[in-house]
Amino acid sequence: MTQSTDPIDLATRLIAAKSVTPATGAVFDAITPMLEAAGFAVTRFIDGSDDPDPENGGPVENLLATRGSGGRHFAFAGHLDVVPPGEGWESDAFAPEIRGGLLYGRGAVDMKGAIACFIAAAMRVPADAGTISLIITGDEEGAAIHGTRALMRHMADASCTPEMILVGEPTSVNRLGDTMKIGRRGSVNMWIRVDGTQGHVAYPHLADNPIAKLVTILNEIAAIELDQGTDWFQPSNIETTDIAVGNPAHNVIPKSASARLSCRFNDLHTGTEIADRLRAIAEKHGGTLKGVVSGEAFLTPPGELSNLVQDAVESVTGVRPEASTSGGTSDARFLSALCPVVEFGLINATMHKLDEAVAVADLENLTDIYEAMLNRAFA
Amino acid sequence: MTQSTDPIDLATRLIAAKSVTPATGAVFDAITPMLEAAGFAVTRFIDGSDDPDPENGGPVENLLATRGSGGRHFAFAGHLDVVPPGEGWESDAFAPEIRGGLLYGRGAVDMKGAIACFIAAAMRVPADAGTISLIITGDEEGAAIHGTRALMRHMADASCTPEMILVGEPTSVNRLGDTMKIGRRGSVNMWIRVDGTQGHVAYPHLADNPIAKLVTILNEIAAIELDQGTDWFQPSNIETTDIAVGNPAHNVIPKSASARLSCRFNDLHTGTEIADRLRAIAEKHGGTLKGVVSGEAFLTPPGELSNLVQDAVESVTGVRPEASTSGGTSDARFLSALCPVVEFGLINATMHKLDEAVAVADLENLTDIYEAMLNRAFA
Repeated sequence: MTQSTDPIDLATRLIAAKSVTPATGAVFDAITPMLEAAGFAVTRFIDGSDDPDPENGGPVENLLATRGSGGRHFAFAGHLDVVPPGEGWESDAFAPEIRGGLLYGRGAVDMKGAIACFIAAAMRVPADAGTISLIITGDEEGAAIHGTRALMRHMADASCTPEMILVGEPTSVNRLGDTMKIGRRGSVNMWIRVDGTQGHVAYPHLADNPIAKLVTILNEIAAIELDQGTDWFQPSNIETTDIAVGNPAHNVIPKSASARLSCRFNDLHTGTEIADRLRAIAEKHGGTLKGVVSGEAFLTPPGELSNLVQDAVESVTGVRPEASTSGGTSDARFLSALCPVVEFGLINATMHKLDEAVAVADLENLTDIYEAMLNRAFA
Repeated sequence: MTQSTDPIDLATRLIAAKSVTPATGAVFDAITPMLEAAGFAVTRFIDGSDDPDPENGGPVENLLATRGSGGRHFAFAGHLDVVPPGEGWESDAFAPEIRGGLLYGRGAVDMKGAIACFIAAAMRVPADAGTISLIITGDEEGAAIHGTRALMRHMADASCTPEMILVGEPTSVNRLGDTMKIGRRGSVNMWIRVDGTQGHVAYPHLADNPIAKLVTILNEIAAIELDQGTDWFQPSNIETTDIAVGNPAHNVIPKSASARLSCRFNDLHTGTEIADRLRAIAEKHGGTLKGVVSGEAFLTPPGELSNLVQDAVESVTGVRPEASTSGGTSDARFLSALCPVVEFGLINATMHKLDEAVAVADLENLTDIYEAMLNRAFA
């Protein structure tokens, strides 16, 4: 038997270890000894210390813990960094407190609570039942450059090859168990710029108004229907999120104009393909386009892992989770390159908000659910 | 005989009386005694002292000088305020200096030079030949709220009713005499605003992107052909001069978006009619539009005054000026409500620029031209 751990106590200790993204140090210290005591081989490393670009969010701590060397290899993945608390909490965001059956604190649901649950669940399973890996980063809420991607390079070096990964992001919506994610849309941000010739509005023939061209470009982009959705995804969508000209003078035709667009797309596309398509429109009208793909779409088609997750959730809660692909991106977009990945976790209603809180009962139930997943994987 | 005045000496003294818009005081003092000595009844008054809005550009000094009470009533109009000099002049912008046959200084061509010329011309004409008025403001380059409009109210009170007005703006392009203006386009500035519903780009169905609507509005406006021009005017034209959203977040659909447009229109339109037409488009797509008409178009159709100007110019320079309606607005847009108005003056190449300068010979020739106009008007 491995050492038993109470998920509520562990979640409380993790919240108290303040770890606004990118995270290093104390919050990882809080789990390392107990994992080692439970027979996990723990590797921790810092990535990004020598990255000169502050936008890349280094340095970031990452942790890989593995136990067992035979049987099925099941991994849990998650992040110990949290978003900033903001102002106006009822109680200190980093002084966890249970009130009315709810544990309050930044990270309670996103996702220190789930990490506490999957660690507790792993400790309930006999060490020889199969192989368990815990893939834990300190940079999911930030640039995500030096987090899970660095962990995956380390896993490749260490020949750590899980066959299934459960990401513990808060996917439940109204009650614990109602929703899991089997995919996520991809995301590409694009910047269009049009340069013209400045001039006086009274002499338009001597000028070349870049706004006119930008409006033509954006209007043509607005007419694009990327797709009508798939069995598993809603239609891909492009939004213009900003236009900037910065011309204070009423009577001056400006020199340049730019727009920023954000596209969330399903697995019928890649970010590069979409950026290329919009770039062709921009260039046709004299503009340029820069695209940055922040994540490609991924889908784990319904199958063994999603069935396993649904069965485990239903066995504890009586609810069979729906398979969703909505919402933003998560580190599952990277991990899906390794093996089937499904996301399942706590109710996300308070994530990133003031007074983030999780029901104590949900932490107990989620631990049971994660334990049921391991038992089914190793059965 | 009235007192004779040298236009070069007077222009030099006017430039030295620094009068960045709005102007009061010294620059008016420089002409008042000589006008009174020459038999002009001079009225000076300040307008806008009690205007609480600094954007309206008060206080402003204005001057009306009239001589004669019979015969034809011919008026010259102009402004003694100048635009700021900017940095980088060869010599002090307000220390006039003649180099290589050119008189340098801010206002040399726009339009202290022309004011010196029409004062000198008026003094060469016998006092009993007809009635001459000089309508001189200190706010043409600024908001033009407390300048010529206030002068026109004063003229109405004083029963000063010229039959022809020559505005001495610098209309010549390549050589003195090549161009006069018989009209000007009108100008209306418009602000379009669209309010939407802010949201996350990953959940577009929960948001309402105001940029999408703004692009639709601007695209529809871009398709408008207001007219194809007239015998005397180029086509009316709408330019979008700014778009502002101010959304720093990549993943957020913004709450509102706005655009600023500037329209220069000919005498087939009024500013209000154009703003109403664009407002209907904005409102159709959920936006609002605010319009501010800074000047209506005017045209003095070719006739007695334009012929008189052309004949006078040709008699001095050998060149018959072309009738133009191009360029920005001038105070002629107000004065045209009183009687036929034509603009004629110096070469405008250096106006509003560094090292503004006028040829000394042009000041002498322009004085002869203005004298020839008076002689023809009073013949």
